[in-house]
Amino acid sequence: MTPKRVFILIAASATMTAAVAQAPKPEDQIHLRQAAYTMMGYSFGSMAAMAQGKRPYSKDDAIRFADLFVQVSTVPKNFFGEGTDKGETRAKPEIWTKRADFDAKMDKMIAEGAKLPAAARGDLDSLKVAVKATADTCGACHDEYRIKR
Amino acid sequence: MTPKRVFILIAASATMTAAVAQAPKPEDQIHLRQAAYTMMGYSFGSMAAMAQGKRPYSKDDAIRFADLFVQVSTVPKNFFGEGTDKGETRAKPEIWTKRADFDAKMDKMIAEGAKLPAAARGDLDSLKVAVKATADTCGACHDEYRIKR
Repeated sequence: MTPKRVFILIAASATMTAAVAQAPKPEDQIHLRQAAYTMMGYSFGSMAAMAQGKRPYSKDDAIRFADLFVQVSTVPKNFFGEGTDKGETRAKPEIWTKRADFDAKMDKMIAEGAKLPAAARGDLDSLKVAVKATADTCGACHDEYRIKR
Repeated sequence: MTPKRVFILIAASATMTAAVAQAPKPEDQIHLRQAAYTMMGYSFGSMAAMAQGKRPYSKDDAIRFADLFVQVSTVPKNFFGEGTDKGETRAKPEIWTKRADFDAKMDKMIAEGAKLPAAARGDLDSLKVAVKATADTCGACHDEYRIKR
């Protein structure tokens, strides 16, 4: 297959089209932020499990999860645009009425999460400290801005 | 909120529980690999759009997308486990009957994708070369192992 044909195939995919556009459609924004949160949950949950002794500690895994978390943690903030308060989402309306606070909490999470790669390259103790600090920033947003199941 | 309470909340989330376990349930594996592919589509599609002149070239953005792509590209291979051939998935049965070939194609995609961060730190021309090489490896798998819509 030629690269050109691959590009055409890529453009034909709904997700890809959404990604390429500067302002994805609301449903695509929701899809993208949810995928990012799923990856954040996967990577952070795995590190938290190590920190809690529920999963065997592996420095290599911790580094991998920390590096993944940092990359995906910056994605959701881009996709709470206009019209994304409706549909299949657990986002509370308060996100849009208290946006400055929501954004500040998001930035705090990103900032704490950014410390995870260095912490993961240390030992289990340094990982625990960074995981706990980041967990607080996750919880701060979930408490106030995510609909409980 | 104490870190301990945050940990409990995390453990209570279905996605998080899946992530923490060493062998997530089949439906959770499907959910995780699909989220990773969505992030791959987002980051790669954005770089491909730059390479094709459909999105303004930004070196900073290219670096961000390349670094994100590298991190998420290694996730899906972990989640084609037993029982994940059923349910809401576009994965073809051939993945499991021709597993060695599927795995080789997956590894080739990861290897080409791993060149994107350096290429993105160059110029638009170096980005184009790496994007085309990676696109070929994406297409190789999609043609053979993904159900068309």
